[in-house]
Amino acid sequence: MEIINDIHQMQKKAEAVRNSGKTIAFVPTMGYLHAGHLALMRAGRQRADVLVVSIFVNPAQFGPKEDFGSYPRDLDRDSALCREAGVDIIFHPAAEDIYPRGYQTYIEVEKLSHGLCGDFRPGHFRGVATVVAKLFHLVKPHLAVFGQKDYQQLAVIRRMVADLNLDIEIVGYPTVRETDGLAMSSRNTYLNAAERQSALALSRSLEQAQQMLQEGERAPGRIEQAVRETISREPATEIEYVRVCHPDSLSELKWVENSALLALAVRVGKTRLIDNRIITTKPGGE
Amino acid sequence: MEIINDIHQMQKKAEAVRNSGKTIAFVPTMGYLHAGHLALMRAGRQRADVLVVSIFVNPAQFGPKEDFGSYPRDLDRDSALCREAGVDIIFHPAAEDIYPRGYQTYIEVEKLSHGLCGDFRPGHFRGVATVVAKLFHLVKPHLAVFGQKDYQQLAVIRRMVADLNLDIEIVGYPTVRETDGLAMSSRNTYLNAAERQSALALSRSLEQAQQMLQEGERAPGRIEQAVRETISREPATEIEYVRVCHPDSLSELKWVENSALLALAVRVGKTRLIDNRIITTKPGGE
Repeated sequence: MEIINDIHQMQKKAEAVRNSGKTIAFVPTMGYLHAGHLALMRAGRQRADVLVVSIFVNPAQFGPKEDFGSYPRDLDRDSALCREAGVDIIFHPAAEDIYPRGYQTYIEVEKLSHGLCGDFRPGHFRGVATVVAKLFHLVKPHLAVFGQKDYQQLAVIRRMVADLNLDIEIVGYPTVRETDGLAMSSRNTYLNAAERQSALALSRSLEQAQQMLQEGERAPGRIEQAVRETISREPATEIEYVRVCHPDSLSELKWVENSALLALAVRVGKTRLIDNRIITTKPGGE
Repeated sequence: MEIINDIHQMQKKAEAVRNSGKTIAFVPTMGYLHAGHLALMRAGRQRADVLVVSIFVNPAQFGPKEDFGSYPRDLDRDSALCREAGVDIIFHPAAEDIYPRGYQTYIEVEKLSHGLCGDFRPGHFRGVATVVAKLFHLVKPHLAVFGQKDYQQLAVIRRMVADLNLDIEIVGYPTVRETDGLAMSSRNTYLNAAERQSALALSRSLEQAQQMLQEGERAPGRIEQAVRETISREPATEIEYVRVCHPDSLSELKWVENSALLALAVRVGKTRLIDNRIITTKPGGE
Protein backbone atom coordinates (compact mmCIF):
# COMPACT_ATOMS: atom_id res chain seq x y z
CA MET A 1 0.00 0.00 0.00
CA GLU A 2 1.23 3.43 -1.00
CA ILE A 3 0.47 6.73 0.75
CA ILE A 4 0.51 9.68 -1.66
CA ASN A 5 0.43 13.25 -0.34
CA ASP A 6 1.44 15.12 -3.48
CA ILE A 7 -1.49 15.98 -5.75
CA HIS A 8 0.56 15.91 -8.97
CA GLN A 9 2.08 12.55 -8.05
CA MET A 10 -1.44 11.21 -7.45
CA GLN A 11 -2.65 12.45 -10.83
CA LYS A 12 0.40 11.05 -12.63
CA LYS A 13 -0.02 7.71 -10.89
CA ALA A 14 -3.73 7.59 -11.78
CA GLU A 15 -3.01 8.35 -15.43
CA ALA A 16 -0.33 5.62 -15.50
CA VAL A 17 -2.75 3.09 -13.99
CA ARG A 18 -5.38 3.95 -16.60
CA ASN A 19 -2.84 3.81 -19.42
CA SER A 20 -1.81 0.34 -18.27
CA GLY A 21 -5.40 -0.78 -18.93
CA LYS A 22 -6.33 -1.15 -15.27
CA THR A 23 -9.49 0.19 -13.65
CA ILE A 24 -9.62 2.43 -10.56
CA ALA A 25 -12.20 2.35 -7.75
CA PHE A 26 -12.29 5.34 -5.43
CA VAL A 27 -13.64 5.85 -1.91
CA PRO A 28 -13.37 9.49 -0.77
CA THR A 29 -13.40 9.86 3.03
CA MET A 30 -12.60 12.35 5.77
CA GLY A 31 -10.76 9.60 7.64
CA TYR A 32 -11.36 8.30 11.17
CA LEU A 33 -12.57 5.21 9.42
CA HIS A 34 -15.30 2.92 10.74
CA ALA A 35 -17.11 -0.21 9.56
CA GLY A 36 -19.21 1.90 7.18
CA HIS A 37 -16.11 3.07 5.32
CA LEU A 38 -14.75 -0.48 5.29
CA ALA A 39 -17.94 -1.68 3.59
CA LEU A 40 -17.49 1.00 0.90
CA MET A 41 -13.90 -0.16 0.44
CA ARG A 42 -14.97 -3.78 0.05
CA ALA A 43 -17.50 -2.68 -2.58
CA GLY A 44 -14.77 -0.78 -4.41
CA ARG A 45 -12.23 -3.60 -4.01
CA GLN A 46 -14.60 -6.04 -5.75
CA ARG A 47 -15.24 -3.77 -8.71
CA ALA A 48 -11.82 -2.59 -9.94
CA ASP A 49 -8.13 -3.43 -10.22
CA VAL A 50 -6.80 -0.59 -8.11
CA LEU A 51 -8.49 0.78 -4.99
CA VAL A 52 -7.78 4.38 -3.95
CA VAL A 53 -9.03 5.84 -0.66
CA SER A 54 -8.67 9.55 -0.02
CA ILE A 55 -8.44 10.93 3.49
CA PHE A 56 -9.08 14.65 3.49
CA VAL A 57 -11.00 16.71 6.03
CA ASN A 58 -12.35 19.28 3.58
CA PRO A 59 -12.49 22.78 5.08
CA ALA A 60 -14.79 24.01 2.28
CA GLN A 61 -17.68 21.85 3.49
CA PHE A 62 -17.61 23.06 7.12
CA GLY A 63 -19.39 26.22 8.26
CA PRO A 64 -17.50 28.76 10.40
CA LYS A 65 -19.21 27.49 13.58
CA GLU A 66 -18.90 23.78 12.73
CA ASP A 67 -16.44 21.13 13.91
CA PHE A 68 -13.67 21.37 11.27
CA GLY A 69 -11.01 21.93 13.94
CA SER A 70 -12.19 19.18 16.27
CA TYR A 71 -13.16 16.63 13.59
CA PRO A 72 -11.41 13.40 14.67
CA ARG A 73 -8.20 12.50 12.81
CA ASP A 74 -5.96 9.42 13.17
CA LEU A 75 -3.90 8.62 10.09
CA ASP A 76 -1.97 5.76 11.68
CA ARG A 77 -5.12 3.90 12.66
CA ASP A 78 -6.71 4.70 9.27
CA SER A 79 -3.63 3.41 7.42
CA ALA A 80 -3.74 0.11 9.29
CA LEU A 81 -7.45 -0.32 8.49
CA CYS A 82 -6.87 0.53 4.82
CA ARG A 83 -4.01 -1.95 4.58
CA GLU A 84 -6.22 -4.70 6.01
CA ALA A 85 -9.02 -3.74 3.59
CA GLY A 86 -6.73 -4.23 0.58
CA VAL A 87 -6.41 -0.55 -0.33
CA ASP A 88 -3.68 0.09 -2.92
CA ILE A 89 -3.29 3.84 -2.47
CA ILE A 90 -4.18 6.24 0.32
CA PHE A 91 -4.40 9.75 -1.08
CA HIS A 92 -3.84 12.20 1.76
CA PRO A 93 -3.38 15.69 0.31
CA ALA A 94 -2.65 18.88 2.25
CA ALA A 95 -5.37 21.54 2.49
CA GLU A 96 -3.00 24.17 1.09
CA ASP A 97 -2.50 22.07 -2.05
CA ILE A 98 -6.22 21.49 -2.53
CA TYR A 99 -7.05 25.16 -1.90
CA PRO A 100 -3.92 27.14 -2.79
CA ARG A 101 -3.72 30.95 -2.52
CA GLY A 102 -6.04 32.58 -5.03
CA TYR A 103 -8.38 29.58 -5.18
CA GLN A 104 -11.78 30.74 -6.47
CA THR A 105 -13.67 28.01 -8.34
CA TYR A 106 -16.80 26.37 -6.91
CA ILE A 107 -19.37 23.92 -8.22
CA GLU A 108 -22.98 24.41 -7.28
CA VAL A 109 -25.66 21.75 -7.75
CA GLU A 110 -28.45 24.22 -7.36
CA LYS A 111 -31.71 22.54 -6.41
CA LEU A 112 -30.50 19.40 -4.63
CA SER A 113 -28.20 21.47 -2.42
CA HIS A 114 -31.19 23.17 -0.85
CA GLY A 115 -33.63 21.73 1.68
CA LEU A 116 -32.72 19.14 4.38
CA CYS A 117 -29.07 19.60 5.49
CA GLY A 118 -28.58 22.33 2.86
CA ASP A 119 -30.82 24.69 4.83
CA PHE A 120 -28.85 24.17 8.04
CA ARG A 121 -25.36 24.04 6.55
CA PRO A 122 -25.20 26.86 3.96
CA GLY A 123 -22.38 26.25 1.48
CA HIS A 124 -21.88 22.66 2.66
CA PHE A 125 -22.88 20.92 -0.56
CA ARG A 126 -21.04 23.48 -2.65
CA GLY A 127 -17.93 22.48 -0.69
CA VAL A 128 -18.72 18.79 -1.13
CA ALA A 129 -19.39 19.01 -4.88
CA THR A 130 -16.26 21.08 -5.43
CA VAL A 131 -13.88 18.84 -3.51
CA VAL A 132 -15.34 15.65 -4.96
CA ALA A 133 -14.91 16.99 -8.52
CA LYS A 134 -11.32 17.94 -7.67
CA LEU A 135 -10.61 14.52 -6.18
CA PHE A 136 -12.18 12.86 -9.23
CA HIS A 137 -9.84 14.82 -11.51
CA LEU A 138 -6.83 13.86 -9.40
CA VAL A 139 -7.67 10.18 -8.81
CA LYS A 140 -9.29 9.57 -12.26
CA PRO A 141 -11.48 6.69 -11.06
CA HIS A 142 -13.73 4.53 -13.22
CA LEU A 143 -16.11 4.22 -10.28
CA ALA A 144 -16.55 5.79 -6.87
CA VAL A 145 -18.42 4.46 -3.83
CA PHE A 146 -20.44 6.64 -1.43
CA GLY A 147 -22.54 5.74 1.59
CA GLN A 148 -26.31 6.20 1.56
CA LYS A 149 -26.12 7.55 5.10
CA ASP A 150 -25.21 10.88 3.50
CA TYR A 151 -28.23 10.61 1.23
CA GLN A 152 -28.38 14.22 0.09
CA GLN A 153 -24.62 14.22 -0.54
CA LEU A 154 -25.01 11.13 -2.73
CA ALA A 155 -27.89 12.79 -4.63
CA VAL A 156 -25.81 15.95 -5.16
CA ILE A 157 -22.84 13.93 -6.41
CA ARG A 158 -24.91 11.76 -8.74
CA ARG A 159 -26.46 14.90 -10.20
CA MET A 160 -23.09 16.64 -10.56
CA VAL A 161 -21.59 13.62 -12.29
CA ALA A 162 -24.52 13.42 -14.72
CA ASP A 163 -24.70 17.19 -15.32
CA LEU A 164 -20.96 17.71 -15.81
CA ASN A 165 -20.65 14.52 -17.91
CA LEU A 166 -18.03 12.97 -15.64
CA ASP A 167 -17.26 9.49 -16.98
CA ILE A 168 -17.49 7.84 -13.56
CA GLU A 169 -19.92 5.25 -12.22
CA ILE A 170 -21.31 6.26 -8.83
CA VAL A 171 -22.09 3.35 -6.50
CA GLY A 172 -24.35 4.05 -3.51
CA TYR A 173 -23.86 1.71 -0.57
CA PRO A 174 -26.43 1.00 2.20
CA THR A 175 -25.87 2.54 5.61
CA VAL A 176 -23.93 0.33 8.00
CA ARG A 177 -25.30 0.33 11.55
CA GLU A 178 -24.14 -0.70 15.01
CA THR A 179 -25.96 -3.81 16.28
CA ASP A 180 -28.34 -1.55 18.23
CA GLY A 181 -29.25 0.40 15.08
CA LEU A 182 -27.14 3.56 15.36
CA ALA A 183 -25.85 4.57 11.92
CA MET A 184 -22.05 4.43 11.77
CA SER A 185 -20.44 7.89 11.79
CA SER A 186 -17.05 9.27 12.70
CA ARG A 187 -18.95 11.81 14.79
CA ASN A 188 -20.38 9.05 17.06
CA THR A 189 -17.07 9.32 18.89
CA TYR A 190 -18.28 12.67 20.29
CA LEU A 191 -21.19 11.01 22.17
CA ASN A 192 -21.06 10.24 25.89
CA ALA A 193 -22.90 7.18 27.26
CA ALA A 194 -26.21 8.97 27.93
CA GLU A 195 -26.16 10.70 24.52
CA ARG A 196 -25.30 7.38 22.87
CA GLN A 197 -28.50 6.01 24.45
CA SER A 198 -30.62 8.96 23.31
CA ALA A 199 -29.20 8.66 19.78
CA LEU A 200 -30.88 5.27 19.36
CA ALA A 201 -34.19 7.12 18.92
CA LEU A 202 -33.07 8.11 15.41
CA SER A 203 -32.97 4.65 13.87
CA ARG A 204 -35.92 3.58 16.03
CA SER A 205 -38.02 6.40 14.64
CA LEU A 206 -37.16 5.41 11.06
CA GLU A 207 -38.41 1.91 11.84
CA GLN A 208 -41.55 3.41 13.37
CA ALA A 209 -42.21 5.46 10.22
CA GLN A 210 -41.86 2.38 8.04
CA GLN A 211 -44.38 0.65 10.31
CA MET A 212 -46.85 3.54 10.03
CA LEU A 213 -46.66 3.50 6.25
CA GLN A 214 -47.22 -0.25 6.14
CA GLU A 215 -50.24 0.17 8.36
CA GLY A 216 -51.80 2.62 5.96
CA GLU A 217 -50.61 6.10 6.94
CA ARG A 218 -49.88 8.20 3.81
CA ALA A 219 -49.65 11.76 5.12
CA PRO A 220 -46.03 13.02 5.37
CA GLY A 221 -47.00 15.50 8.10
CA ARG A 222 -48.36 12.82 10.41
CA ILE A 223 -45.35 10.56 9.89
CA GLU A 224 -42.98 13.48 10.54
CA GLN A 225 -44.92 14.37 13.68
CA ALA A 226 -44.70 10.83 15.08
CA VAL A 227 -40.96 10.71 14.39
CA ARG A 228 -40.49 14.09 16.07
CA GLU A 229 -42.33 12.88 19.15
CA THR A 230 -40.25 9.71 19.42
CA ILE A 231 -37.01 11.65 19.18
CA SER A 232 -38.06 14.54 21.44
CA ARG A 233 -38.93 12.13 24.23
CA GLU A 234 -35.19 11.32 24.63
CA PRO A 235 -33.03 13.58 26.81
CA ALA A 236 -30.48 15.90 25.18
CA THR A 237 -32.06 15.70 21.71
CA GLU A 238 -32.82 18.77 19.58
CA ILE A 239 -34.35 18.18 16.16
CA GLU A 240 -32.99 20.14 13.18
CA TYR A 241 -35.37 18.62 10.65
CA VAL A 242 -37.50 15.54 10.03
CA ARG A 243 -38.68 15.37 6.43
CA VAL A 244 -40.58 12.91 4.25
CA CYS A 245 -39.66 13.79 0.66
CA HIS A 246 -39.22 12.56 -2.89
CA PRO A 247 -36.29 10.11 -3.06
CA ASP A 248 -34.87 11.62 -6.28
CA SER A 249 -35.70 15.34 -6.26
CA LEU A 250 -35.75 15.59 -2.43
CA SER A 251 -38.74 17.91 -2.84
CA GLU A 252 -41.72 18.04 -0.50
CA LEU A 253 -44.40 15.36 -0.80
CA LYS A 254 -48.10 15.97 -0.23
CA TRP A 255 -48.84 12.26 -0.07
CA VAL A 256 -46.81 9.05 -0.09
CA GLU A 257 -47.67 7.00 -3.19
CA ASN A 258 -45.33 3.99 -3.03
CA SER A 259 -42.16 5.07 -1.33
CA ALA A 260 -40.45 8.14 0.05
CA LEU A 261 -37.25 9.26 1.68
CA LEU A 262 -37.45 9.94 5.39
CA ALA A 263 -34.45 12.05 6.34
CA LEU A 264 -33.61 13.65 9.65
CA ALA A 265 -30.93 15.61 11.45
CA VAL A 266 -30.81 15.82 15.22
CA ARG A 267 -28.43 17.35 17.70
CA VAL A 268 -27.71 14.97 20.55
CA GLY A 269 -25.88 17.06 23.11
CA LYS A 270 -23.51 19.07 20.92
CA THR A 271 -23.21 16.34 18.29
CA ARG A 272 -25.10 16.69 15.02
CA LEU A 273 -26.29 13.30 13.74
CA ILE A 274 -28.11 12.46 10.51
CA ASP A 275 -29.96 9.35 9.41
CA ASN A 276 -32.42 8.38 6.69
CA ARG A 277 -34.40 5.53 5.26
CA ILE A 278 -36.44 4.82 2.14
CA ILE A 279 -39.86 4.01 3.59
CA THR A 280 -42.27 2.02 1.43
CA THR A 281 -45.92 1.04 1.54
CA LYS A 282 -44.98 -2.56 0.82
CA PRO A 283 -44.46 -4.91 3.76
CA GLY A 284 -40.81 -5.58 4.51
CA GLY A 285 -39.79 -1.96 4.00
CA GLU A 286 -36.82 -0.93 1.86
CA MET B 1 -13.24 13.26 -40.67
CA GLU B 2 -16.03 12.14 -38.41
CA ILE B 3 -18.98 14.22 -37.19
CA ILE B 4 -20.26 13.07 -33.79
CA ASN B 5 -23.54 14.39 -32.40
CA ASP B 6 -24.12 11.90 -29.60
CA ILE B 7 -22.45 12.86 -26.33
CA HIS B 8 -21.97 9.27 -25.12
CA GLN B 9 -20.48 8.25 -28.47
CA MET B 10 -18.06 11.20 -28.19
CA GLN B 11 -17.02 10.20 -24.68
CA LYS B 12 -16.55 6.54 -25.65
CA LYS B 13 -14.53 7.52 -28.70
CA ALA B 14 -12.32 9.84 -26.62
CA GLU B 15 -11.68 7.11 -24.04
CA ALA B 16 -10.79 4.66 -26.82
CA VAL B 17 -8.35 7.15 -28.36
CA ARG B 18 -6.68 7.69 -24.97
CA ASN B 19 -6.55 3.94 -24.29
CA SER B 20 -4.82 3.44 -27.65
CA GLY B 21 -2.01 5.68 -26.38
CA LYS B 22 -2.83 8.62 -28.62
CA THR B 23 -3.11 12.25 -27.53
CA ILE B 24 -6.10 14.52 -28.11
CA ALA B 25 -6.05 18.25 -28.90
CA PHE B 26 -9.31 20.12 -28.55
CA VAL B 27 -10.60 23.41 -29.95
CA PRO B 28 -14.02 24.36 -28.57
CA THR B 29 -15.92 26.78 -30.84
CA MET B 30 -19.40 28.15 -31.42
CA GLY B 31 -18.95 27.54 -35.15
CA TYR B 32 -19.18 30.03 -38.03
CA LEU B 33 -15.46 29.50 -38.27
CA HIS B 34 -13.01 32.15 -39.40
CA ALA B 35 -9.23 32.44 -39.79
CA GLY B 36 -8.87 32.85 -36.01
CA HIS B 37 -10.40 29.45 -35.40
CA LEU B 38 -8.28 27.94 -38.16
CA ALA B 39 -5.14 29.21 -36.42
CA LEU B 40 -6.26 27.54 -33.18
CA MET B 41 -6.83 24.31 -35.13
CA ARG B 42 -3.36 24.46 -36.65
CA ALA B 43 -1.92 24.93 -33.17
CA GLY B 44 -3.89 21.90 -31.95
CA ARG B 45 -3.05 19.84 -35.04
CA GLN B 46 0.69 20.29 -34.39
CA ARG B 47 0.50 19.27 -30.76
CA ALA B 48 -1.46 15.98 -30.68
CA ASP B 49 -2.41 12.84 -32.59
CA VAL B 50 -6.13 13.47 -32.79
CA LEU B 51 -7.75 16.89 -33.27
CA VAL B 52 -11.30 17.41 -32.04
CA VAL B 53 -13.26 20.62 -32.75
CA SER B 54 -16.58 21.19 -31.03
CA ILE B 55 -19.26 23.36 -32.59
CA PHE B 56 -21.85 24.31 -30.01
CA VAL B 57 -23.63 27.62 -29.57
CA ASN B 58 -23.94 27.48 -25.80
CA PRO B 59 -27.24 28.93 -24.56
CA ALA B 60 -25.90 29.15 -20.97
CA GLN B 61 -23.42 31.88 -21.87
CA PHE B 62 -25.94 34.21 -23.53
CA GLY B 63 -28.05 36.67 -21.56
CA PRO B 64 -31.82 36.84 -22.22
CA LYS B 65 -31.41 39.99 -24.37
CA GLU B 66 -28.33 38.76 -26.23
CA ASP B 67 -27.92 37.27 -29.71
CA PHE B 68 -28.25 33.52 -29.01
CA GLY B 69 -31.08 33.17 -31.56
CA SER B 70 -29.39 35.19 -34.28
CA TYR B 71 -25.81 33.96 -33.69
CA PRO B 72 -24.58 32.86 -37.16
CA ARG B 73 -24.58 29.11 -37.84
CA ASP B 74 -23.40 27.22 -40.96
CA LEU B 75 -22.41 23.62 -40.28
CA ASP B 76 -21.79 22.75 -43.96
CA ARG B 77 -19.30 25.57 -44.38
CA ASP B 78 -17.72 24.80 -40.98
CA SER B 79 -17.36 21.11 -41.88
CA ALA B 80 -15.57 21.94 -45.12
CA LEU B 81 -13.18 24.26 -43.27
CA CYS B 82 -12.51 21.64 -40.58
CA ARG B 83 -11.81 18.99 -43.18
CA GLU B 84 -9.28 21.26 -44.89
CA ALA B 85 -7.69 22.03 -41.50
CA GLY B 86 -7.08 18.34 -40.81
CA VAL B 87 -9.67 17.99 -38.05
CA ASP B 88 -10.34 14.35 -37.11
CA ILE B 89 -13.62 14.78 -35.26
CA ILE B 90 -16.25 17.51 -35.23
CA PHE B 91 -18.28 17.23 -32.03
CA HIS B 92 -21.65 18.87 -32.62
CA PRO B 93 -23.94 18.05 -29.70
CA ALA B 94 -27.58 19.07 -29.31
CA ALA B 95 -28.48 21.67 -26.67
CA GLU B 96 -31.03 19.28 -25.11
CA ASP B 97 -28.28 16.69 -24.58
CA ILE B 98 -25.90 19.22 -23.03
CA TYR B 99 -28.64 20.71 -20.82
CA PRO B 100 -31.25 17.98 -20.33
CA ARG B 101 -34.40 18.47 -18.25
CA GLY B 102 -33.50 18.91 -14.58
CA TYR B 103 -30.02 20.25 -15.36
CA GLN B 104 -28.79 22.24 -12.35
CA THR B 105 -24.99 22.20 -11.99
CA TYR B 106 -22.88 25.30 -12.60
CA ILE B 107 -19.22 26.19 -12.16
CA GLU B 108 -18.32 29.64 -10.95
CA VAL B 109 -14.80 31.10 -11.13
CA GLU B 110 -15.60 33.80 -8.67
CA LYS B 111 -13.18 36.72 -8.95
CA LEU B 112 -12.08 36.49 -12.58
CA SER B 113 -15.70 36.33 -13.74
CA HIS B 114 -16.29 39.85 -12.46
CA GLY B 115 -15.15 43.11 -13.98
CA LEU B 116 -14.72 43.76 -17.72
CA CYS B 117 -17.23 41.69 -19.74
CA GLY B 118 -18.46 40.00 -16.54
CA ASP B 119 -20.08 43.26 -15.42
CA PHE B 120 -22.00 43.65 -18.68
CA ARG B 121 -22.86 39.99 -19.24
CA PRO B 122 -24.00 38.62 -15.86
CA GLY B 123 -23.77 34.82 -15.82
CA HIS B 124 -21.74 34.73 -19.03
CA PHE B 125 -18.55 33.29 -17.57
CA ARG B 126 -20.49 30.87 -15.39
CA GLY B 127 -22.00 29.56 -18.62
CA VAL B 128 -18.58 29.46 -20.29
CA ALA B 129 -16.83 27.68 -17.40
CA THR B 130 -19.65 25.16 -17.09
CA VAL B 131 -19.85 24.22 -20.76
CA VAL B 132 -16.08 24.07 -21.14
CA ALA B 133 -15.80 21.69 -18.17
CA LYS B 134 -18.56 19.54 -19.66
CA LEU B 135 -16.89 19.50 -23.07
CA PHE B 136 -13.56 18.63 -21.41
CA HIS B 137 -15.20 15.64 -19.70
CA LEU B 138 -16.77 14.50 -22.98
CA VAL B 139 -13.76 15.05 -25.27
CA LYS B 140 -11.07 14.12 -22.71
CA PRO B 141 -8.33 16.18 -24.33
CA HIS B 142 -4.68 16.32 -23.31
CA LEU B 143 -4.60 19.94 -24.41
CA ALA B 144 -7.07 22.60 -25.51
CA VAL B 145 -6.47 25.76 -27.53
CA PHE B 146 -8.25 29.08 -26.90
CA GLY B 147 -7.89 32.48 -28.56
CA GLN B 148 -6.48 35.43 -26.64
CA LYS B 149 -9.13 37.65 -28.22
CA ASP B 150 -11.44 36.37 -25.49
CA TYR B 151 -8.85 37.29 -22.88
CA GLN B 152 -11.09 37.14 -19.82
CA GLN B 153 -12.56 33.82 -20.99
CA LEU B 154 -9.05 32.39 -21.31
CA ALA B 155 -8.18 33.66 -17.82
CA VAL B 156 -11.36 32.10 -16.38
CA ILE B 157 -10.65 28.77 -18.07
CA ARG B 158 -7.00 28.67 -17.00
CA ARG B 159 -8.10 29.36 -13.42
CA MET B 160 -10.85 26.73 -13.53
CA VAL B 161 -8.46 24.12 -14.92
CA ALA B 162 -5.91 24.87 -12.20
CA ASP B 163 -8.49 25.10 -9.39
CA LEU B 164 -10.42 21.95 -10.34
CA ASN B 165 -7.21 20.02 -11.07
CA LEU B 166 -8.18 19.22 -14.64
CA ASP B 167 -5.28 17.34 -16.24
CA ILE B 168 -5.36 19.45 -19.42
CA GLU B 169 -2.79 21.83 -20.88
CA ILE B 170 -4.38 25.14 -21.89
CA VAL B 171 -2.76 26.82 -24.89
CA GLY B 172 -3.54 30.50 -25.47
CA TYR B 173 -3.22 31.67 -29.07
CA PRO B 174 -2.68 35.29 -30.25
CA THR B 175 -5.59 37.17 -31.77
CA VAL B 176 -5.81 36.84 -35.53
CA ARG B 177 -6.69 40.11 -37.29
CA GLU B 178 -7.93 41.21 -40.68
CA THR B 179 -5.24 43.05 -42.72
CA ASP B 180 -6.73 46.38 -41.58
CA GLY B 181 -6.43 45.37 -37.91
CA LEU B 182 -10.00 44.29 -37.01
CA ALA B 183 -9.89 41.28 -34.68
CA MET B 184 -11.49 38.21 -36.27
CA SER B 185 -14.90 37.41 -34.82
CA SER B 186 -17.96 35.51 -36.01
CA ARG B 187 -19.93 38.61 -35.00
CA ASN B 188 -18.09 40.77 -37.60
CA THR B 189 -20.64 39.36 -40.06
CA TYR B 190 -23.26 41.58 -38.37
CA LEU B 191 -21.45 44.80 -39.39
CA ASN B 192 -22.50 46.90 -42.39
CA ALA B 193 -19.88 48.79 -44.41
CA ALA B 194 -20.03 51.99 -42.32
CA GLU B 195 -19.91 50.06 -39.04
CA ARG B 196 -17.04 47.98 -40.35
CA GLN B 197 -15.17 51.25 -40.91
CA SER B 198 -15.98 52.55 -37.41
CA ALA B 199 -14.87 49.26 -35.89
CA LEU B 200 -11.29 49.89 -37.00
CA ALA B 201 -11.00 52.40 -34.16
CA LEU B 202 -10.78 49.50 -31.69
CA SER B 203 -7.49 48.05 -32.90
CA ARG B 204 -6.22 51.52 -33.73
CA SER B 205 -6.83 52.66 -30.16
CA LEU B 206 -4.91 49.65 -28.77
CA GLU B 207 -1.98 50.68 -30.93
CA GLN B 208 -2.33 54.25 -29.68
CA ALA B 209 -2.25 53.06 -26.05
CA GLN B 210 0.91 51.08 -26.69
CA GLN B 211 2.42 54.23 -28.19
CA MET B 212 1.48 56.33 -25.15
CA LEU B 213 3.04 53.82 -22.79
CA GLN B 214 6.25 53.75 -24.80
CA GLU B 215 6.36 57.53 -24.73
CA GLY B 216 6.24 57.52 -20.94
CA GLU B 217 2.57 57.65 -19.94
CA ARG B 218 1.95 55.42 -16.90
CA ALA B 219 -1.48 56.46 -15.62
CA PRO B 220 -4.24 53.97 -16.52
CA GLY B 221 -6.89 56.71 -16.39
CA ARG B 222 -5.17 58.88 -19.00
CA ILE B 223 -4.59 55.92 -21.33
CA GLU B 224 -8.23 54.85 -20.97
CA GLN B 225 -9.36 58.42 -21.66
CA ALA B 226 -7.34 58.68 -24.87
CA VAL B 227 -8.69 55.33 -26.07
CA ARG B 228 -12.25 56.41 -25.27
CA GLU B 229 -11.78 59.60 -27.29
CA THR B 230 -10.41 57.75 -30.32
CA ILE B 231 -13.32 55.34 -30.33
CA SER B 232 -16.03 57.89 -29.57
CA ARG B 233 -14.97 59.99 -32.54
CA GLU B 234 -16.24 57.25 -34.89
CA PRO B 235 -19.93 57.18 -35.83
CA ALA B 236 -22.23 54.48 -34.38
CA THR B 237 -19.84 53.53 -31.56
CA GLU B 238 -20.94 53.19 -27.95
CA ILE B 239 -18.29 52.19 -25.41
CA GLU B 240 -19.16 49.54 -22.80
CA TYR B 241 -15.79 49.64 -21.09
CA VAL B 242 -12.15 50.53 -21.68
CA ARG B 243 -9.92 49.20 -18.92
CA VAL B 244 -6.20 49.03 -18.18
CA CYS B 245 -5.77 46.21 -15.68
CA HIS B 246 -3.48 43.52 -14.30
CA PRO B 247 -2.86 40.85 -16.96
CA ASP B 248 -3.34 37.94 -14.49
CA SER B 249 -5.81 39.06 -11.83
CA LEU B 250 -7.64 41.49 -14.18
CA SER B 251 -7.87 43.83 -11.21
CA GLU B 252 -7.59 47.61 -11.39
CA LEU B 253 -4.14 49.17 -11.71
CA LYS B 254 -3.14 52.48 -10.15
CA TRP B 255 0.01 52.69 -12.24
CA VAL B 256 1.56 50.71 -15.09
CA GLU B 257 4.88 49.23 -13.95
CA ASN B 258 6.04 47.14 -16.92
CA SER B 259 3.01 45.86 -18.72
CA ALA B 260 -0.77 45.74 -18.45
CA LEU B 261 -3.81 44.41 -20.20
CA LEU B 262 -5.84 46.95 -22.12
CA ALA B 263 -9.28 45.45 -22.72
CA LEU B 264 -12.33 47.04 -24.25
CA ALA B 265 -15.87 46.31 -25.37
CA VAL B 266 -17.71 48.58 -27.77
CA ARG B 267 -21.07 48.45 -29.45
CA VAL B 268 -20.78 49.36 -33.11
CA GLY B 269 -24.36 49.76 -34.27
CA LYS B 270 -26.06 46.83 -32.60
CA THR B 271 -22.95 44.63 -32.67
CA ARG B 272 -20.93 44.13 -29.51
CA LEU B 273 -17.21 43.84 -30.27
CA ILE B 274 -14.33 43.15 -27.87
CA ASP B 275 -10.60 43.52 -28.30
CA ASN B 276 -7.52 43.63 -26.08
CA ARG B 277 -3.79 43.94 -26.06
CA ILE B 278 -0.97 43.53 -23.60
CA ILE B 279 0.65 46.97 -23.59
CA THR B 280 4.23 47.27 -22.38
CA THR B 281 6.62 50.04 -21.50
CA LYS B 282 9.29 48.44 -23.66
CA PRO B 283 9.60 49.60 -27.27
CA GLY B 284 8.11 47.15 -29.75
CA GLY B 285 5.05 46.48 -27.61
CA GLU B 286 3.83 42.98 -26.76
